[in-house]
Amino acid sequence: MRLSRYFLPTLKENPAEAQIMSHRLMLRAGLMRQSSAGIYSWLPLGYRVLKNIEQIVREEQDRAGAVELLMPTIQSADLWRESGRYDDYGKEMLRITDRHDREMLYGPTNEELITDIFRSAVKSYKDLPLNLYHIQWKFRDEIRPRFGVMRGREFLMKDAYSFDIDKEGARQAYNKMFVAYLRTFDRMGLKAIPMAADTGPIGGDMSHEFIVLADTGESEVFCHKDLVAMDPPDAGIDYESDLQPLINQRTALYAATDELHDESEFNKIPESDRLTARGIEVGHIFYFGTKYSASMGAVVTGPDGKDVPVEMGSYGIGVSRLVGGIVEACHDDNGIIWPDSVAPFSVGLINLKSGDTGTDNECEAIYAELTNRGFSVLYDDTDERAGAKFGQMDLIGLPWQLIVGPRGLKSGVVEVKRRDTGKREELSREAAMNLIAA
Amino acid sequence: MRLSRYFLPTLKENPAEAQIMSHRLMLRAGLMRQSSAGIYSWLPLGYRVLKNIEQIVREEQDRAGAVELLMPTIQSADLWRESGRYDDYGKEMLRITDRHDREMLYGPTNEELITDIFRSAVKSYKDLPLNLYHIQWKFRDEIRPRFGVMRGREFLMKDAYSFDIDKEGARQAYNKMFVAYLRTFDRMGLKAIPMAADTGPIGGDMSHEFIVLADTGESEVFCHKDLVAMDPPDAGIDYESDLQPLINQRTALYAATDELHDESEFNKIPESDRLTARGIEVGHIFYFGTKYSASMGAVVTGPDGKDVPVEMGSYGIGVSRLVGGIVEACHDDNGIIWPDSVAPFSVGLINLKSGDTGTDNECEAIYAELTNRGFSVLYDDTDERAGAKFGQMDLIGLPWQLIVGPRGLKSGVVEVKRRDTGKREELSREAAMNLIAA
Repeated sequence: MRLSRYFLPTLKENPAEAQIMSHRLMLRAGLMRQSSAGIYSWLPLGYRVLKNIEQIVREEQDRAGAVELLMPTIQSADLWRESGRYDDYGKEMLRITDRHDREMLYGPTNEELITDIFRSAVKSYKDLPLNLYHIQWKFRDEIRPRFGVMRGREFLMKDAYSFDIDKEGARQAYNKMFVAYLRTFDRMGLKAIPMAADTGPIGGDMSHEFIVLADTGESEVFCHKDLVAMDPPDAGIDYESDLQPLINQRTALYAATDELHDESEFNKIPESDRLTARGIEVGHIFYFGTKYSASMGAVVTGPDGKDVPVEMGSYGIGVSRLVGGIVEACHDDNGIIWPDSVAPFSVGLINLKSGDTGTDNECEAIYAELTNRGFSVLYDDTDERAGAKFGQMDLIGLPWQLIVGPRGLKSGVVEVKRRDTGKREELSREAAMNLIAA
Repeated sequence: MRLSRYFLPTLKENPAEAQIMSHRLMLRAGLMRQSSAGIYSWLPLGYRVLKNIEQIVREEQDRAGAVELLMPTIQSADLWRESGRYDDYGKEMLRITDRHDREMLYGPTNEELITDIFRSAVKSYKDLPLNLYHIQWKFRDEIRPRFGVMRGREFLMKDAYSFDIDKEGARQAYNKMFVAYLRTFDRMGLKAIPMAADTGPIGGDMSHEFIVLADTGESEVFCHKDLVAMDPPDAGIDYESDLQPLINQRTALYAATDELHDESEFNKIPESDRLTARGIEVGHIFYFGTKYSASMGAVVTGPDGKDVPVEMGSYGIGVSRLVGGIVEACHDDNGIIWPDSVAPFSVGLINLKSGDTGTDNECEAIYAELTNRGFSVLYDDTDERAGAKFGQMDLIGLPWQLIVGPRGLKSGVVEVKRRDTGKREELSREAAMNLIAA
C-alpha cells in the first residue's frame, strides 16, 4: 500500500480525552476515531489489526472443532422473555422498538438465540457434541464508556456455545476451549494466564478468565510466576485426546484476579515465586449447565430414549478489546510495537527522498519484491521530511522498517530497523530482504 | 469438514412462508434461519457463501484503489441532523434512545458518518482522490420484510464513498467503481448489466444500477442483447488509465429497468436484438456531488488556495442480497448450483457405506489428499442411506461430488459428478483428483 493513496490520519498531540495508553496510542496512530460515546470507527490501519486478530481467533476455534455461523445483531425480546433475562438485564441492554411497536434489542450476548437455533434443529444425542461460535458486533450500553475499546459500547466479540449430552461431555468441550484459548493468545504475542473465576450458583471449577499481563492493566492479579513461563500447547495437539492432564497442569498453581484473591493461599507460595501484577481480561470460558436449555426447552433424546436438557457452556473472547490489550502490552515511548502476527503491515518502507529517481526506483523495486514474496508493505512515498516519517513509522509500530536514502544507495545499502529491539543494520537490498524473510 | 461434526440442518419440506425460490432454497439447504421478521441467522453453510462473496467484493474494491475501514452500526442522530436527513428519512430508519436519552440510530447507510470522518482528517486537495469503503451490517425497518435476504431488515452491504476535488475527478472515481463492479459480479458467475438509473436533482449520467438477469427476478428489465455477451474487463486493467472508452462501450447500448424504460427508444433496436427479462438489483453507483459535503462542511483547499466542498459519489453492493441473487440465477429442480467461486465447499465427498473399512479408508485418503491440495471438502461420513445423501448433496449444490461405494472400489473406481452439468464419470482416484483440480 502506498501511503500517498492510503488514509492514515495520525495525530501529533495526545488526545485530551484519552486516559490510558492504548486509547491514546490508538487515536494517535490513526487506528480508530470515536463517532459517539463508546462507539468507534475503525480506520484502515486499525481495521487491518482487528481482522488479523479475528482471523487468529477463527483459526484456533476451527482447529478445536467449533463451527462458525453468524447470528444477527438485532434480536427479538420474546426469546429473552423465555429465559427470563429480558427484565433482569437492566439498562446495559440497548432496547429498541421497531415500526410495528415490537420490542427488539441489540444483542449484548447470544445464549438465547443460539439455544433457539439449537432446539429447532437438534433432537438426538447422536448429533452431539456440538460447539457453535460467531464473531459479531455486540452492544452494551455502559453507563460511562471509557478507555477507548477497552470499555466501549459497540464491540466485537467471539462467543462460542457448546452443547453436550452430559456434564462429562461438557467438560471435554470446556477443556478444548481452554486449550484453544492458550494457543490463541500466544499466537498474538500475549502472555494470557487462566485464572479461576466466579461460577455463581452453578458451582464447580469450570469458569476461567484469561488475563493478559500489562503494566497498565485494569485490575490487580496474583499468581505463581511459573505460569508466565509455560509454553502454549502445540499446534498439532489432538483435541480428541484427553486434555484433562494439561488443564490440571495449568490450574494447579495459584492464580487469581483481585475478585477471588485469597491472601492466605497466595502466601503459601514461596515469596520469590509470587507474582503480583496488573492484568486485562481478554477471554472468559464458563460452564453453565442447563440454565438456558431447561428454561427454553432445548432437549435431546439420550441413548436411553429419554429427553434431557443439553449441557451448555459459553466461551468469549473480546476481539476489539484485544486490540487495546495488545497495545497496552506492546508499546514504548515512541508508539506501538505490534507483534508480527497481528501487525497491520509487516514492513514500513521509507523513501527518504521521494521524487529522486534513484531512491524512487530502489523503493519501487523493493516494494514489488516484498509484495511478490507475500509481505504486506506500507510504502511511505510522501514528500514529508525524514524526521516526520521516522516518527510516524515508530508510532504505528510495524515490525520492520526499511529505509532507503540517497547516501546509503551510493554505498549500495539500505537500512533495516526492527521496531521491537530498535536494532538497525545497513545491508544490501538482497541481505535486507533475507533478514526480513528469515 | 466432516458432516458428522458439522451443523447442517437441511429441511425436507418447502417452508410455507417462503414465496420465492431463493428464500425456499436458502431455508431448505440450511443456509440460514429466520430469527425474527426480516432478520436471519447465517448458518455455517450459508455463512461460508457470504464470506466468499464478501471476499470477492473486497478484492475488487482493493484492486480499484478503494481503502477499507469499518464504521459502527450505531450512529448518533446529531450527524443526520447536520445533513437534514434525520427528519426526512422516515420509518425505515431504526431509531434508538440510549440510557442517557440520547437519540441514536442503526445506520441504514453511511454518507453522514464517512463525511464526518473525512472532514476531520483531510484538508487539502493533495490528499485526494480518496475512496473509502466498508462492508458492514445495516438495518432498514422495511414495513413488510419478505423474500428472505432479498428484502430483509438487517443486511450486509458494501458501501464505498469517493472524494474528489472536482467533477472530473469524481467521474474518474465513478468509472473505477463501474469497472470494479463488472469484474466483481462476473467473478461470482453472474451476468450483471449496468443500467442507467435515476439521478434525481443532480442530473447527468452518473447513476447506474447493476442488474443480474434471473427468471425469477423482482422486476422487468429491457436491454440490447449484446450487453449479455460482453466479457468483463481483465484483471490486469490499469485503473489509472482512461476508463471512459470502456464505460462508453458499456453504456452505448440500450439498457433500462422498468422505472426508466422508454418503449420508443427500445423499439429502435432491431427486434431480434431486443431482450426483455427479469432482473435483480445487486449494486448501485451514484454521483451526488456536494450534497453532503456542502451541508456538513467537508471542504478542502484547492490548488488555488480556496476552500471548496468535495465532490462525492457512493457505490453500494448488496452482499447478503447477492447470496439470494446467486441462488435465483443458479439452481434447478434439485437445489442450488453454486458457481465455483462462491461455493461453501468445492467438493462433497459421499461415503456410501460408512463403517465399511474399505470405503472409510478410501474416503479418508481422498479427504486428506484434497485438503492437502487446498480444496475445501464437505465429507458426508454419516450413516444416512444413499438416496438421502445424494438428495442433500444436490440440494446444497457443491460444484463437485465424489461418490465412494464398495462396488466401485472393487473395480478401482470412484464416481465424480459435476453438479452444474450433471455429468458423471467413473474414474480411478488419481484421475478423479485430477479432474477436480483441472
